[in-house]
Amino acid sequence: MNQPKIIVHGGAWAIPDDLREGVLQGVRHAANAGFQILKQGKASLDAVEIAVRILEDNPVFDAGRGSCLNAKGQVEMDAVIMNGRTLAAGAVAGIDCVKNPVSLARMVMEKTKHVLLIGEGAKLFAEEMNVEMVGQDYLVTKYAREELENYRKYEKTVGNLFNNKLSGCDTVGAVAIDCHGNIACATSTGGITAKRVGRVGDAPIVGAGAYCDNLGGGVSATGHGESIIRVSLAHQTVGLMKSGETADDACKMALSDMAERVHGAGGLIAISKNGDIGYHFTTERMAWAYASDDLVTSGLDPGDSEVFSMSKL
Amino acid sequence: MNQPKIIVHGGAWAIPDDLREGVLQGVRHAANAGFQILKQGKASLDAVEIAVRILEDNPVFDAGRGSCLNAKGQVEMDAVIMNGRTLAAGAVAGIDCVKNPVSLARMVMEKTKHVLLIGEGAKLFAEEMNVEMVGQDYLVTKYAREELENYRKYEKTVGNLFNNKLSGCDTVGAVAIDCHGNIACATSTGGITAKRVGRVGDAPIVGAGAYCDNLGGGVSATGHGESIIRVSLAHQTVGLMKSGETADDACKMALSDMAERVHGAGGLIAISKNGDIGYHFTTERMAWAYASDDLVTSGLDPGDSEVFSMSKL
Repeated sequence: MNQPKIIVHGGAWAIPDDLREGVLQGVRHAANAGFQILKQGKASLDAVEIAVRILEDNPVFDAGRGSCLNAKGQVEMDAVIMNGRTLAAGAVAGIDCVKNPVSLARMVMEKTKHVLLIGEGAKLFAEEMNVEMVGQDYLVTKYAREELENYRKYEKTVGNLFNNKLSGCDTVGAVAIDCHGNIACATSTGGITAKRVGRVGDAPIVGAGAYCDNLGGGVSATGHGESIIRVSLAHQTVGLMKSGETADDACKMALSDMAERVHGAGGLIAISKNGDIGYHFTTERMAWAYASDDLVTSGLDPGDSEVFSMSKL
Repeated sequence: MNQPKIIVHGGAWAIPDDLREGVLQGVRHAANAGFQILKQGKASLDAVEIAVRILEDNPVFDAGRGSCLNAKGQVEMDAVIMNGRTLAAGAVAGIDCVKNPVSLARMVMEKTKHVLLIGEGAKLFAEEMNVEMVGQDYLVTKYAREELENYRKYEKTVGNLFNNKLSGCDTVGAVAIDCHGNIACATSTGGITAKRVGRVGDAPIVGAGAYCDNLGGGVSATGHGESIIRVSLAHQTVGLMKSGETADDACKMALSDMAERVHGAGGLIAISKNGDIGYHFTTERMAWAYASDDLVTSGLDPGDSEVFSMSKL
């Protein structure tokens, strides 16, 4: 029997101080909820889905409710989920009407022969599956609207967003290993404020925003989506774990390589096949939390690490 | 000065005998056209774009004109292009109105901060860029309509298409190395006949349908898109070349791994940083051709290899 573990993130960027407590509580709560699933002997796939659903439902994060708005003020959400035992994967991109994109991604994986459904096709599939649909009034928060207004005022380019504190890109994600040693991962996002209509970042791209393989480990990525795609960041990180690197070293090496090759910043969470946990970020901050042994450890700034007993969360 | 080379493919599947001459002439012509660009000292990026445009324009291939139709009888095309020197990439997915998706992908790479644009957003961008738009009357061929009718008659699942000769999935692609040693690759497709509306395969996914890095090599993939995504086939193959494998060995190892892990069949073309060429397929047939030294070599069945002088094409 393996010791079950889960790690989650709530995005890597210059998270403003007024969001600090909200995001930390949010990632701790999600990690704890995922861990309770694992403790019952359930699959890592169930744990990452539950953890990501909780992060999607929490408006403080840029995924599901609270998603960033595109240049036309619309929500376009992306999500992916992957099973490290079978390498099965499901993803959706450019959807605007589903409460929990990660669960729709799981249905793509389990109920179709496909991996990725986009736009109108993904919406038709959601209707067929009878998943919970929601309107813009639910998905769009006051904060997301203000972020778009701020962006428009400053007319910054998407690339520049990473050099200031104007706008967030707090993708969420989770990686878990269950008592059978099976690894799963999931990532979900509303993308970047003021993105071009139809822009898809790394989140729903298997190999970029998430990847897992029981022979190596599991990864969820966050940060500058275009950079992450260009280096296939998640697949690269799992490859390093396959070659024997620890999760921690694999995250550091892959992010350092991304910075060097494409000058991109981001964050990673990972669990290796041996059950060791890793997280690292080259952005100003990343919200992360992991749970094992009835303890939840979390942090935001580099070097941060607070441990809580689950009963005290 | 490096010796310039280009390799192209016209899809890996059970290509029927009546298409044999058409696809072979098509890939030879595309390889030759790309090579003429390289011989003028131009960039590998220009060569792969020209070669893929020619394959898109040729209705015998499932990309651009001649694209397979989805379950509702619509065209939904995907394409990607990548620069191995900078790791810059551009892609489009789910577009129905552009003559040359690969050129639109290149515009995403060069004219936006993004990598991937989908659906309506990609269409808006195409309009902004003033690219050549075409109607369904141009894109949809009699053959594509018949394939969909055949499919509907037999009601086969997409997975089953690879076990019979009913329907094609002849993605096209190209990989080139220019006289400066810069590598580029591109892939374009209309997808699989009777695919679900909104289904996106490997073609536009950086790391799946294509990847290149001057430090390793370049790759374009074809075959069962969902399997290719699940193993990040192109990124995996480039990683093997980075570790010192030849292009040929890297293609064989990556496809053998895909067969073992996810039971998927497909084909690969590759050029390594050292300029050696590789191609391999685990489907019944793959149309391929490469050009160097004013010779074009091509084949379709396993073991096939015919050499033509370019002046005799």
